[in-house]
Order: sequence, then C-alpha cells, then structure tokens
Amino acid sequence: MLRITALAGGIGGSRFLRGLLRAAPDAQVTVIGNTADDITLHGLHVSPDLDTVMYTLGGGIEESQGWGRTGETFAVASELAEYGAEAQWFTLGDRDLATHLIRTRMLAAGYPLSAVTEALCDRWQPGVRLLPMTDDRVETHVVVASASGSEDDGASERAIHFQEWWVRLHAEVPARRIVLVGADQAKPAPGVLDALASADVIVLPPSNPVVSIGPILAVAGVRDAVRAATAPVVGLSPIIGGSPVRGMADAALQAIGVPTTAAGVAELFADLLDGWLVDTVDADAVPVVEAAGVRCAAVPLWMTDVDAAAAMARAALDLAEEVRAR
Amino acid sequence: MLRITALAGGIGGSRFLRGLLRAAPDAQVTVIGNTADDITLHGLHVSPDLDTVMYTLGGGIEESQGWGRTGETFAVASELAEYGAEAQWFTLGDRDLATHLIRTRMLAAGYPLSAVTEALCDRWQPGVRLLPMTDDRVETHVVVASASGSEDDGASERAIHFQEWWVRLHAEVPARRIVLVGADQAKPAPGVLDALASADVIVLPPSNPVVSIGPILAVAGVRDAVRAATAPVVGLSPIIGGSPVRGMADAALQAIGVPTTAAGVAELFADLLDGWLVDTVDADAVPVVEAAGVRCAAVPLWMTDVDAAAAMARAALDLAEEVRAR
Repeated sequence: MLRITALAGGIGGSRFLRGLLRAAPDAQVTVIGNTADDITLHGLHVSPDLDTVMYTLGGGIEESQGWGRTGETFAVASELAEYGAEAQWFTLGDRDLATHLIRTRMLAAGYPLSAVTEALCDRWQPGVRLLPMTDDRVETHVVVASASGSEDDGASERAIHFQEWWVRLHAEVPARRIVLVGADQAKPAPGVLDALASADVIVLPPSNPVVSIGPILAVAGVRDAVRAATAPVVGLSPIIGGSPVRGMADAALQAIGVPTTAAGVAELFADLLDGWLVDTVDADAVPVVEAAGVRCAAVPLWMTDVDAAAAMARAALDLAEEVRAR
Repeated sequence: MLRITALAGGIGGSRFLRGLLRAAPDAQVTVIGNTADDITLHGLHVSPDLDTVMYTLGGGIEESQGWGRTGETFAVASELAEYGAEAQWFTLGDRDLATHLIRTRMLAAGYPLSAVTEALCDRWQPGVRLLPMTDDRVETHVVVASASGSEDDGASERAIHFQEWWVRLHAEVPARRIVLVGADQAKPAPGVLDALASADVIVLPPSNPVVSIGPILAVAGVRDAVRAATAPVVGLSPIIGGSPVRGMADAALQAIGVPTTAAGVAELFADLLDGWLVDTVDADAVPVVEAAGVRCAAVPLWMTDVDAAAAMARAALDLAEEVRAR
C-alpha cells in the first residue's frame, strides 16, 4: 500500500487532499497539519487549518467558501457581539463552535492536541490520519508598523497574531517580518517524524508556502526529517501566473522577500524538493526550476472541482514515480 | 428611597421580582442569587439562577417556559450531540451559550463571579443590583440510592449534582439527603452582608425553599445576617394547597423531612421570618403560622402575569410595613 505523507494548510491543502484521496483511493495518507494559525477566541482553542482539513474530507465544509461548516448559523456570535465581547473581527459559527468547545475541554483535561484531533476525527472520518504538526504552542505573528509609526525603527513596530493580520486587516498592512513564535522549541507531534521517514511519497500541496507549509517545516526537526526522508518530495505551486490561487499569499511572500512566482516558491523549498509542478501558464518556469536540480513539469493547477484536484494529485504522484525511477 | 433585599432562586424568584419592580418602581432592589445550581457543562460555567433573574428582568427570557432565552436556537447543542459529547441531558441554547462563554472566560481571567455578573448585567440592565450569594464554589448535591442498591446502607448510595437529579432524573428518584457542598466554607460575595444589614425590607420570594433559598441561607454568615437585620423579613409561600407552584419542590422538601405545606415551609424559616404570605386556599394555615410568632396573611399567590406578581409584591411590602409598625 502506497504511503503518502502530506504537509497541509487550510483551504488549498484540503481541496488538494480530497483530489489525492480520489486519485489514490487505496493509499494510506497521513496529513501533517499546520497549527500556527491556531488562536484562542472567547476562551476557545480554534485550530482553523486542522478543522478545514477535517471538515473538507469529512463532508462538513461549506463548499462556497472552502472553510467553516455547511449550513452554518451565527446565533452565538451575534450574542457575543451584543455583549461587546472581543474579538468581533473573527466570527465563530455555531456548528463550528461545538468543535472548539470539545477541543478546549479536552485540552483543559490534559489531552494533547494530537489526541484531541484524533477524537474529533472519530466523528468526521476524513479518510486520512490527521496529525497536528506539534502538540506544543506555535503561533505565527506578523510584525507591522504601528498605526502611529511612520519611521522605520523598532519602536514603531508591533507584532500581531497572524489571524489579526489575515482576517482583520486582510493582509493590507504590509508585513515587515513573519515570526513563528515557539517553532524552534516545539517538538513534532507523535507520529510526525515517523510519517515522514516511512513515507513512499511526501507531498507539499498548493498551500500558502509562508504561513501554512512554512510553520510545519519550522517545527524543530521537521525540515531535516523531510530532507532526510528516502521518499521523493513533490510540491505543487500555489502561485499561478504571478498571483496566489487564493488568499493573500503574495503579501506573505513579500514579507520574507520571495517573489510571487511559481519558481520563487520552488526556490524557497529547493533544499527539500525532488519535483515541482507549475501551472501551464508558468511553463517558462520549468527550466528555471530544473536548473536548481528539481524535476519540474507544467500541468493545469486550478482546482475548479474535485476532478481537477484529482488530476493534479495524479500528476504529483506520477512526478514522484518519475523521480524515484531516475 | 426604600431599600429592598431579596433572596432569589430561578423562575419563581424572577417572576416575583418583576412584580416587585412594578409594585415599587422607586425602590432600590438588591437581589442575592442562588449559585448552588451552577454547573460546568462542556467546560463552561453555567449559572442558571443568576441568568434567569438577569434574562427575566432584562427582557430576554423565554416567557413560555420561564427560563432560557427568547427565540433560542440549538445548533451548538445539536453538534455537540453529533460528537457524542456529554452531558446530553442538559441542553445549552446558542444564545444562552454566549453568556456562559463570557462568564467562563472572565472567571478564567481571575474575575470573581460577582464582577462577572455585574459585567453581564451591564448589557441586560435588570433594574436591580444582582449579587451572587458567594464568589466561592458551592454545589447542591443530592444523595440517592445507587441503581443497584436496594439496601439502606451507605454503600448503596451515591451523590449526584443537583442538576442531574433535577433535569436528568426529573427528581423522580427519591432524594435521601441534600448536601450543600462548600456552603460552610463559602464567604458571602461582596455586598451581600451589607445589603442585608442596610435593607428596609428583606423578602423571600416564592422560590424553592430547599434548593434555592436554602443554599443562600447556608452560606456562612448569611442566615445570621438575615436574623440580625433590623429590617422586617417577609416571605411568600411557594406551596399552594399542598403542591409546589412550579417545579418539584415537594421532592426536595421530602428529602429534608419538611411537609409540603405553606405552614411547613414557614416553619423552615421560622427563625428568620417576621411575616409570611400564604395563598387564599391555605387560609387555615394562617393561625398555625401566627402561633409560631410570625405575622401571616392569605392573599392570591398564583403569578399568572406581571400584574398578579405585582399585587403579591405589594402585599408583601404591606405586610412588612405592618410588622414594622407593631
């Protein structure tokens, strides 16, 4: 049985994984999920990326937006607003909130996030083994200029939680730096290193390279484990024609000085990658990527539906096979 | 300005208080609320009696049942059930849940329950000063026979939370004893003793005498403070014609060996009471109660609407005035 290990963020990763399960229905898939987007809201531990994977693969996602629960309602959020409770810029749906209640209660009882995630998946049966990247706390913070500060010195900066930058500020305030607080002290969650070492294929889906894939690789030991793995490592570009497929990946790439191009992202992962897929519109990136020693091919990368995602997954697995055969 | 201090449980107390505010619109009313019904559900601190007072006086109560929020929905509870999360016998509504989220978050941040209650009332503007009886943890537990045990020995007993007995078991399992865990070590919340000492009238609304009024009086020092108060203490019978007006007060009275009669409840409070109101159908209890040294009158005690509750409140204030004048 083919063992596939994928590093996944939220929407893009989840949609790709759904295609992967269709493309390789008999594979044993382990997903290492980003938890650096996690945030405590109204006292509840929210894990947006893990939940997006779980809901998407478990059939509970709101398809129209790619996140949140289908048929969601907002009675609790509306009442919280009546009380004036912050943060009002992040709205928790009622159905979604039940997940966070259970997670928060289990964490308070001493269960690690990995055990909580397993318990939640017991309901959703996502068809993959979903592991948080770590049971420790890692948080993506974004350093932005203070409202008052126009000068370029430390005193005029402040660090805000990634979600505040992403959801509240729509990433419109330029990010000066992105800091993965806690990543260097975090230990990979149980199963993570083993899933990398024993994989037949390691896949980097078209997730945000900076704030989704980046934090997973930043957990102490994970990047080394991916590099040391015997499995071919193949990735799919989240950038098509110089723009992010979704979200505001360009703003995040800009913060770390990486060009918003299919080749730019490949370079970010060059030490890991054996293969890289770019969209057909980026075919001229193929020789650039290959010059860096990474096998590259151009295929359609728009995940317009599950079939399209499955075709992408098939192309990724084919590329892995090709790399392995060389 | 007339200063009235009332000891209140949930539904009966709240409806009476609404009448009291109509009967004495210029009075300064302090309500000492029962918190021994409080329970932690899904990690949230639920204070049913405080919330019932707050919602009723603040215009947010579901009138048809006397508890819970008007226009309530149950999306979160339905999802929690999908996860199989306990306790499923106590259903939290979505709107109500927002209150518990804020309470739990504030308690976790170190605020005492009294400060939390004040913050919540800032939205609801109940028109009274609502104080929890204590900021410490007091819980009413009910000792029942074990499912297996038919013999009358300690080994065949178990203690359950009041809410489990009341809501899950509908008080159908006989209560052997009622234990107010923590009451003797609990300190009255800030303002409680002062509200008793400085009151012009102290009122015991027609709340459950055992599990609503009882726990308030059981908080260390409160019963003594009521006894020592210069204000007349008047109460209203929650029993009419040998049956509780609402709920299952008879089951609770039985547990402590008190007859379910208007005179029986008066006797329970005989050390405190200056005046006691019974319903007109219980007019023959008047001489019995008066023989115990408590001024007693028979007036209609069915709170069919706010007008009826206001008439009861007026009768209670009149009785207090009469006692004071003697």
